[in-house]
Amino acid sequence: MNCSVAQALDQIGDWWTLLIVREAVYGKSSFSEFQDSLGIARNILADRLRRLLEQGIFEKMQVRPGVDRYAYHLTEKGRDLLPLMVALMQWGDRWVTGRGAEPIRILDAERRKPIKRIEVMSADDRALSIGQLRFRPGPGAGRELLMRFERARIERARRANPAAIKRRRVS
Amino acid sequence: MNCSVAQALDQIGDWWTLLIVREAVYGKSSFSEFQDSLGIARNILADRLRRLLEQGIFEKMQVRPGVDRYAYHLTEKGRDLLPLMVALMQWGDRWVTGRGAEPIRILDAERRKPIKRIEVMSADDRALSIGQLRFRPGPGAGRELLMRFERARIERARRANPAAIKRRRVS
Repeated sequence: MNCSVAQALDQIGDWWTLLIVREAVYGKSSFSEFQDSLGIARNILADRLRRLLEQGIFEKMQVRPGVDRYAYHLTEKGRDLLPLMVALMQWGDRWVTGRGAEPIRILDAERRKPIKRIEVMSADDRALSIGQLRFRPGPGAGRELLMRFERARIERARRANPAAIKRRRVS
Repeated sequence: MNCSVAQALDQIGDWWTLLIVREAVYGKSSFSEFQDSLGIARNILADRLRRLLEQGIFEKMQVRPGVDRYAYHLTEKGRDLLPLMVALMQWGDRWVTGRGAEPIRILDAERRKPIKRIEVMSADDRALSIGQLRFRPGPGAGRELLMRFERARIERARRANPAAIKRRRVS
């Protein structure tokens, strides 16, 4: 299905990507800092950074003119991975390490208070669960996706009222 | 670093996991529905589902007593992956497919309006960017993590006022 989840995962590549992004969010910017924090092999790190540069998630800048040292900074596209990273961290805090054992707390710098839990919100600010969402084809839906939605619609109607569907089919 | 990002990624396993979760969010529940939607090999799907059951992200239920057919449903832990999935989808919509070409729109079922963009929010409801966050050791921070934070604190202080740090070292 040509959904953005699959395409986003494809761009992100593998878990190392999110861990490198995490280090950049923590303020790391050099190859050796990433390597030191992640304990990742040089060739794997070099490969992931090259990929991240190609995809415009990081940009590479010379530290000082004339010096052969570089810093890797998140671009706007890279910084926009923040909600994803925080959602992942909060899920891990809740379901892996467990409450009261969070390795890291994220605070709002201005008020020094913990940030909110990330949730899916309606336009009028209600937190929404899966059952409160509806998925509809968007402007970029391809033929296959449209067919899937149509089949799902018929299936829902059948479940809601089996007799009505039968009648419609016969007529 | 023993952060929840790495531990969450470790539990989620690989990209297939999030795609199976996505299908469950769309209402799919049987092995054949997952296989049909994802075009995934039977043995890989069986392996991922087994893993997801072990980790309590899915639960397996007999469709009807006495019938050898099963449905896979998200547990609370699984449903709690929703913000992560939506964040991933919105990132893909913005940076991969591009605005105006979104394959899928997510609506609030009650008002039939698009959901909000997922953001990191302060306790008093301000959207926060990376520079507006502070990362601090939590109650579950291990020794290595505490040392990292301490080194980072010293580094920040040195950058802010190199002379002061030098004096402190000498005294």
